[in-house]
Amino acid sequence: MTDVRIAGVGLTPFGRHPERTGRDLFAEAALAARDEAGVSRDDFEAVHYGNFMGALSERQGHQGPLAAEAAGLDAPATRHESACASSGIAVREAVRGIRSGEHDVLLAGGMERMTNLDTAAVTESLAIAADELFEVRAGMTFPGAYALMARAYFEEFGGAREDLAHVAVKNHANALENEYAQYRREVSVADVLDSPPVADPLHLMDSCPITDGASALVLVSGEYADEHGLDAPVAVTGTGQGGDNLALQDRTHLNRTPAAEKAAREAYDDAGRTPADVDVAEVHDCFTIAEVLALESLGLYDEGEAVGAARRGETTREGRLPVNLSGGLKAKGHPVGATGGAQVAEMVRLLRGDHPNSDAVSDARVGVTHNAGGTVASAVVHVLEVRG
Amino acid sequence: MTDVRIAGVGLTPFGRHPERTGRDLFAEAALAARDEAGVSRDDFEAVHYGNFMGALSERQGHQGPLAAEAAGLDAPATRHESACASSGIAVREAVRGIRSGEHDVLLAGGMERMTNLDTAAVTESLAIAADELFEVRAGMTFPGAYALMARAYFEEFGGAREDLAHVAVKNHANALENEYAQYRREVSVADVLDSPPVADPLHLMDSCPITDGASALVLVSGEYADEHGLDAPVAVTGTGQGGDNLALQDRTHLNRTPAAEKAAREAYDDAGRTPADVDVAEVHDCFTIAEVLALESLGLYDEGEAVGAARRGETTREGRLPVNLSGGLKAKGHPVGATGGAQVAEMVRLLRGDHPNSDAVSDARVGVTHNAGGTVASAVVHVLEVRG
Repeated sequence: MTDVRIAGVGLTPFGRHPERTGRDLFAEAALAARDEAGVSRDDFEAVHYGNFMGALSERQGHQGPLAAEAAGLDAPATRHESACASSGIAVREAVRGIRSGEHDVLLAGGMERMTNLDTAAVTESLAIAADELFEVRAGMTFPGAYALMARAYFEEFGGAREDLAHVAVKNHANALENEYAQYRREVSVADVLDSPPVADPLHLMDSCPITDGASALVLVSGEYADEHGLDAPVAVTGTGQGGDNLALQDRTHLNRTPAAEKAAREAYDDAGRTPADVDVAEVHDCFTIAEVLALESLGLYDEGEAVGAARRGETTREGRLPVNLSGGLKAKGHPVGATGGAQVAEMVRLLRGDHPNSDAVSDARVGVTHNAGGTVASAVVHVLEVRG
Repeated sequence: MTDVRIAGVGLTPFGRHPERTGRDLFAEAALAARDEAGVSRDDFEAVHYGNFMGALSERQGHQGPLAAEAAGLDAPATRHESACASSGIAVREAVRGIRSGEHDVLLAGGMERMTNLDTAAVTESLAIAADELFEVRAGMTFPGAYALMARAYFEEFGGAREDLAHVAVKNHANALENEYAQYRREVSVADVLDSPPVADPLHLMDSCPITDGASALVLVSGEYADEHGLDAPVAVTGTGQGGDNLALQDRTHLNRTPAAEKAAREAYDDAGRTPADVDVAEVHDCFTIAEVLALESLGLYDEGEAVGAARRGETTREGRLPVNLSGGLKAKGHPVGATGGAQVAEMVRLLRGDHPNSDAVSDARVGVTHNAGGTVASAVVHVLEVRG
């Protein structure tokens, strides 16, 4: 099977950019990735692009061609949408395009513009990731849904708000040195516990922010990288996707995420790896409880064990398995359609050794990224490895 | 390379179903395709689904998991969106998934719900397929854009409204026997010419209608088909995709569609076929001029020659190359996200010999489908062939 290498990554600063168009944001990330890769623009064969709510935030669908244009590429482009997993899917489709031997050079990434909407509009827009008939009409919101998941988790496995608070504290600490992060600000357990409640047991500081931003990756075949003498030490060695019922009410368990379990199994099998091989992880912590569920679905912790991981210091930058060294969605920010690509971009920087937090994982060889849509009705997992 | 067979197709009647949800429509098409294929539901490995404007028409994004659920499948599902080419892309991704050896059984298709919106809302929703900054804000509408393309065509190559009227007359005649068509009603050249102008030179009867509907296909590998003794005589032998600038103003020519030319070249090369091999075509006639441009981009006519094809009787059911025997978007209807999949479904029926219009192409072995997004900023072409 063809080796898939990442030859360049690009990110915008994540944060509030209400005055910038989506195409402008994506252009910044895409051109940065292209610059880093140094690949001839004529060699790009397709663009795989993730965007979630552009129809609502910019009245702009059909963003594939716009993304290619913004990136300065004359190549067919497709938008993939799986809510918050949109650009995880885009990366996956690019990996498959190279794997199959069809393509040698692809651009993947995503973009979301959110802060141009007021809070009510952005909440309503995010809600389209849930089941409109059976959840949204009944008043379900995402904080509410994840609160249910947290309660079900506490009920079955134990754990408490303070455990979750440590996840937020850790991720904020990780974001301090990340130049792309939205919130480079330390927070304490007390800050999280004392922040206003959103949906009990989740408080404001258990939740990721509203963010604008874009991510981009240049993916090439190993043959192309070798032939062109590219510096592309990180390979995508595993990819997996899982799905579940859209509505939470249709799931067997509220405190497990089988879509991510399936995606993880598939990605590990694909890479010939097991959870024991993982040195570092970027996971979808849209809420603190989501990081806990992610670590269990990835097989990095047994069921009921991950809730104390951050508190025990196991997933901090000093821990045995650093998680969300980028700052995670919690502190780096969550421009929905850009997030999956950004996780991979951050992992590439971590594994290459040029991330501000690379020193925390200087011997890391294997990283895993976990990107989820909705209440994990969609999930995409990638395994990345350092070559050579 | 793995042979890709179509084991089953399903369509809803196209038309006005304002009271039916999108998931209900897709369920009908998907279950029909599954019934026809007779494939065990446990064997489905993924769902590729196209939808364009669900965020606006149903406040429902993240439709991949819903599509899988509606189809009764426990499989990862992805929504692909390329405006009116959304389910063409979905079919293409499925073809690639089987080609690469990764999958053996996939469901592909699409759905659009439109008539629950009033005319102003549906027009505004369709407009998100155009460039919001440089077209929509300037007042561009799709009839206006295609009218510019028609004028540029007439200016350079000749042709007149009457030529275009023959396209509508032909496609309405073809729809008469199609049980899935929205308009099973004969129209005359005079009816088209006398219909109210929309954007000169295009009149109401040059335009496709607003439609609800869904399409679905079961795609399997040749090995799977043989092993399970499936009756799947039609293979997808070629797939191609092309892209262009989103805004019409950024194109070199208004009367050519290079995205479709690229998609067609790629699909023919892939299939080892040339335009001379094509016996029958389903093309994206959102406006009558679009059929003309499609036939030229597919290499079925030289530049400037296709405008008279319907008038000369070459593309009618009695002609040497019947085009849009389904009725086309014009008369069969155009539920945007379902259209690309529906074109393939209709072509399968035509080639298998069980379409009401199969008698017009009883010796046909090679068919081509052409699905376009926006003003052909996205294009997908497939070549289908009868095996054995």
